[in-house]
Amino acid sequence: MLVNGKHFTAVWMEDATVYMIEQNLLPFEFKIFEAKTYQEVCFAIKTMITRGAGCVGAAAAFGMAQAFMTAPKDKFTEFTAKARKEIEATRPTAKDLFTATKRVFNAGMISVESAVKESFAIHQAYIEAGRRIGEFGSRLIKNGFKIETHCNAGWLGLVDWGSALAPVYTAFHEKKDIFVWVDETRPRGQGARLTAWELKQENIPHKIVPDNAGAYLMSNNMVDIIFVGADRIAQNGDAANKIGTFEKAIVAKSFGIPFYICAPLSTFDFDCSSGKNIPIEERDQNEVLYQSGVDRSGNIHEVLVCSPGSNAINPAFDVTPAEYITGIITEKGIIKPCEEDILSLLH
Amino acid sequence: MLVNGKHFTAVWMEDATVYMIEQNLLPFEFKIFEAKTYQEVCFAIKTMITRGAGCVGAAAAFGMAQAFMTAPKDKFTEFTAKARKEIEATRPTAKDLFTATKRVFNAGMISVESAVKESFAIHQAYIEAGRRIGEFGSRLIKNGFKIETHCNAGWLGLVDWGSALAPVYTAFHEKKDIFVWVDETRPRGQGARLTAWELKQENIPHKIVPDNAGAYLMSNNMVDIIFVGADRIAQNGDAANKIGTFEKAIVAKSFGIPFYICAPLSTFDFDCSSGKNIPIEERDQNEVLYQSGVDRSGNIHEVLVCSPGSNAINPAFDVTPAEYITGIITEKGIIKPCEEDILSLLH
Repeated sequence: MLVNGKHFTAVWMEDATVYMIEQNLLPFEFKIFEAKTYQEVCFAIKTMITRGAGCVGAAAAFGMAQAFMTAPKDKFTEFTAKARKEIEATRPTAKDLFTATKRVFNAGMISVESAVKESFAIHQAYIEAGRRIGEFGSRLIKNGFKIETHCNAGWLGLVDWGSALAPVYTAFHEKKDIFVWVDETRPRGQGARLTAWELKQENIPHKIVPDNAGAYLMSNNMVDIIFVGADRIAQNGDAANKIGTFEKAIVAKSFGIPFYICAPLSTFDFDCSSGKNIPIEERDQNEVLYQSGVDRSGNIHEVLVCSPGSNAINPAFDVTPAEYITGIITEKGIIKPCEEDILSLLH
Repeated sequence: MLVNGKHFTAVWMEDATVYMIEQNLLPFEFKIFEAKTYQEVCFAIKTMITRGAGCVGAAAAFGMAQAFMTAPKDKFTEFTAKARKEIEATRPTAKDLFTATKRVFNAGMISVESAVKESFAIHQAYIEAGRRIGEFGSRLIKNGFKIETHCNAGWLGLVDWGSALAPVYTAFHEKKDIFVWVDETRPRGQGARLTAWELKQENIPHKIVPDNAGAYLMSNNMVDIIFVGADRIAQNGDAANKIGTFEKAIVAKSFGIPFYICAPLSTFDFDCSSGKNIPIEERDQNEVLYQSGVDRSGNIHEVLVCSPGSNAINPAFDVTPAEYITGIITEKGIIKPCEEDILSLLH
């Protein structure tokens, strides 16, 4: 997608260097991080310079390919095996990362060229998944639609296009007249910071919405459809996503507003039968108590925004039961959130 | 209620000085503002040193009494009439303010002593209303209850006790084992800042909750009852309150969690037949885009927390339709949110 009018993907490789948009600096600064070695790729994944399932997968694939390209001839096997372990240790819960390292590593057993080729194929597959989610999702967007989205499920997390934002980009490129309500998505503000930044770069009309205003907007016929991403989808169609997604889904259902999950196949967990089995990470309360931002002189401050000495709860995700989900938009098409449709994705 | 172990009301008068807790400095600093003249009371209302229907009413009453106490003998009528006008101009939409100035002004037509006495009666009536809301509301709170509240409807807004927090204080004083979930209440954070501060001062166990986590808490049986305040209640039982209240009410209803509005009689608008007629104020988008807080050195900063150049919507209130409200707790008892019960309050 566009940044300052120029097309970028969130992660890419040229020669033996991996380039990544420095996402820790967004939305206040746009900078490219250059990783000349797989160790620098590890550093970027660990410190969240790049983030999101697709970007982590693509960066890991490129890092693994880099290891093959730079492995010393006399210690080739040892070096590449060690690199794989180090890459896999950067984010041990990211499924896409393991799939990527495995695929590139196995290709590297044939030749270095195969490893490099495989890493580009993985990168391209994420772009293609986003593009197709966009195509299928855009069919649901009528001219004049007001779309609400929660958190950031844009191209910054999926290399290009994104998941929940892919239909938005596609509809806009098809010249549909659309408007996007961007939930700010407290406590980390990924909507206000990343989604708003993405949409502004593409010149798509949008406004940031306090999370509290969802029912106000929906009850006043100001929302036609909702698209959100997912972190994990169980076999029964329950979907884990950023905290607040479930609340929006309940409100949407009560006003009859279509609520869609957008996710590539890699998000489906075929070993997880129900959302009830998805553990919810509780994160540091300081993410709620403190907020960072820039003052009018451009200096970044982290400030306490709550009453001193009070504690906070900070669940990172919630699980939206399938009954609240209208459909799931994948690169293979739009399915119902039920076991039969989800298992059909395997074929 | 308590501040650093000592009892305070949010507004009070001693001799001819009106004292107010400086609410603009909370929760980071506790300071008392002294208004020696009615003009200083006007300044305090205008700049929100004191806020909330009850505090504005009580401050206006005391300011009006001050005017009678300090009016020069030769220009008595002119001076007091001018004072009334000035006080009423400070917050022209606050119903309680006009009721207060009228009552004290009329009493002042009899004698200065009557005006002073009337101002104390008004002050006392707010305290009494809160106390009785607390008594009625506490009957709904069982031992071990987890209570959720939104925004600040505590004693800082109603002189003492508060509306939504009054049942909490009463239950706690009755030695019930309770816990309070405090919605942070973006964008202005009155929950995270004022409610959390109030509860900490009274040592009531509580945690701040990102507004997004409501459905997570409620779906996990972590909320037994919800108490919120109201800005205006229509004759049909629809209630306007801080943005996000409606969303919580929808979620509560979907999980069968009792959702109560707590409000003194002065909140009922008998000229307003339905919530549909309540206009919703849209406030400055900068309240969403910027956040203020203190850094670790104790300096206050206002920082941009959203992507630069994006705009925001900032509706201050929403209207919760009566069908989502379990009951309304008033100083006259608990009523159903329907016209019959509401009109019975007039008798």
